[in-house]
Amino acid sequence: MSDFTLTCPVPLANYPRVLMAHGGGGRLMRDLIHNVFAAHLAPQHHTDSAIVPATGSRLAFTTDSFVVRPLFFPGGDIGSLAVHGTVNDLAMAGAIPHSLSAAFILEEGLEIATLLRVVQSMAAAARDAGVQIVTGDTKVVERGHADQLYINTAGIGFFKDARVLAPDQIQPGDAILLSGDIGRHGMAIMSAREGLAFESEITSDSAPVHREVHALLDAGIPLRCLRDLTRGGLASALIELSASSGLRFDLDETAIEVREDVRAACEILGFDPMYVANEGRFIAFLPLSCTKTAQNVLPNARIIGSVTATTEPLVTLRSPFGATRVLDLLSGEQLPRIC
Amino acid sequence: MSDFTLTCPVPLANYPRVLMAHGGGGRLMRDLIHNVFAAHLAPQHHTDSAIVPATGSRLAFTTDSFVVRPLFFPGGDIGSLAVHGTVNDLAMAGAIPHSLSAAFILEEGLEIATLLRVVQSMAAAARDAGVQIVTGDTKVVERGHADQLYINTAGIGFFKDARVLAPDQIQPGDAILLSGDIGRHGMAIMSAREGLAFESEITSDSAPVHREVHALLDAGIPLRCLRDLTRGGLASALIELSASSGLRFDLDETAIEVREDVRAACEILGFDPMYVANEGRFIAFLPLSCTKTAQNVLPNARIIGSVTATTEPLVTLRSPFGATRVLDLLSGEQLPRIC
Repeated sequence: MSDFTLTCPVPLANYPRVLMAHGGGGRLMRDLIHNVFAAHLAPQHHTDSAIVPATGSRLAFTTDSFVVRPLFFPGGDIGSLAVHGTVNDLAMAGAIPHSLSAAFILEEGLEIATLLRVVQSMAAAARDAGVQIVTGDTKVVERGHADQLYINTAGIGFFKDARVLAPDQIQPGDAILLSGDIGRHGMAIMSAREGLAFESEITSDSAPVHREVHALLDAGIPLRCLRDLTRGGLASALIELSASSGLRFDLDETAIEVREDVRAACEILGFDPMYVANEGRFIAFLPLSCTKTAQNVLPNARIIGSVTATTEPLVTLRSPFGATRVLDLLSGEQLPRIC
Repeated sequence: MSDFTLTCPVPLANYPRVLMAHGGGGRLMRDLIHNVFAAHLAPQHHTDSAIVPATGSRLAFTTDSFVVRPLFFPGGDIGSLAVHGTVNDLAMAGAIPHSLSAAFILEEGLEIATLLRVVQSMAAAARDAGVQIVTGDTKVVERGHADQLYINTAGIGFFKDARVLAPDQIQPGDAILLSGDIGRHGMAIMSAREGLAFESEITSDSAPVHREVHALLDAGIPLRCLRDLTRGGLASALIELSASSGLRFDLDETAIEVREDVRAACEILGFDPMYVANEGRFIAFLPLSCTKTAQNVLPNARIIGSVTATTEPLVTLRSPFGATRVLDLLSGEQLPRIC
């Protein structure tokens, strides 16, 4: 059953923390749903599923769970991240994000005030991104069986036209565009987690990017493929796309912007910014002839590399000193619970 | 990024248990996704979102997280339950279930063999229900921050026609149809959890119900509203629908089938079968004139009550001895982590 089904007005019960009974299907669950979820996310829904008009002949469908720790960090929180992550997954397919679901796993004992703060942040992020959160679910697990709260968002979006953005559309000669500076989300989380203070606070880049994507498309640029730079960062995204397209990517490190404070934090904590997660950055593959137009549309974007045919898929990075190294997937764990 | 993006063949690494690095965006995550998820659920997907053709002008969209304990129980497991739950939510809207997403939160230390068993069960349940699992996500949290594994499934479905099934469609004079016996899912879980052995094993009723729904619709029955009987059971579903429709429902307890072993288990454990969760049962509101047709279509279904206009929404239950009681939502927790 959709948890946004219940909207009969009941007073917010005087329970400052989540109880097992808040997930039990009875009066307390109705109370929580009415006062916390339905009040902020989807007050209008009365049926088991949300009903959405199909505004295109194809739709994009995606899902992500969010387990980020801590729940709140400079520049965002688990709620805004859960909206941005799924909006951006839809944007990467070239779709126009339309509706999201929101499913919560709550740990017994979680403060209701904390939950409310997260839900209000989700609502604000959804409004800002122009999407509606239309259906949801709530489960409660015993103390010690979650870490305060986890959120899953799934999303659907529609396409304006028949264009397909995919790795097999990438062509030799294409340029690789990076939409902005990298490494801020991961370093904002790590700084918050480790209690590190730098001269300037590093804020997450978490943001919806679908407007940037559609600005490129609306400018007539025949984008080949897009990829957001989440877990594993810029390097992992490129390595995966090189493998799936069967092409070689050569990158110029001087074109890849890393803010000084982010670079300093990476050095202190032992991270390579090329592998650090972002939540508001993407790469786009596009014809070389369109790079000037693309940079006019997105002034913060940079052309960071080029695509060539190869017998062996490969990603290389040329350093500012002229040395070239091959990038490979990391084996171990770099940044646990970053999203 | 969709976790089904990566399909380059890599050998299954020799890690019998989930490590934090399996969620880290690197080589181990690619390995897990390739060998466990993509191998069984959606081998064909290469883009961030799944692309689904819109086969109707409206679609239903729903989500549910599953935290059931234990993971395996007589008649099902968390994987099959996660498929049935979302398929059934779509069916309750009158939609034809089309595609599901599957997002996993894994606890560090989970046996890969356990995960594989769950994923194979999901794949079988999806095949059986005629839906595809088209997109997914994997997160890993530290030991003690989950209970083995949690699954979220979201789902989309399409409508054959413009019919709307909703509480406000229920009319005085309608009959209430129950699709089968109640209480088996909850009692199967509780028996497994408490290690109780009854003469006959109680198996969960967990099953997809969309074919039953569409058999009723295809027989020309103008269904008003459907509701599955999950958390809170038959009683809670009816109480909520009475409140949202503003109508009175009068039920005949003798028409509500509870198997003898389920009734015995309820008595031993102190549960009221009217409030026990089911995962393959639903109620349908339909014109009184259609009840014979409906029972021909679904031989296990029974007419359990009727709808009347009222100034005060109310659900009553007439016992076999002729006494009538008013049903109300439970306040506390009846069956934690039943789904």
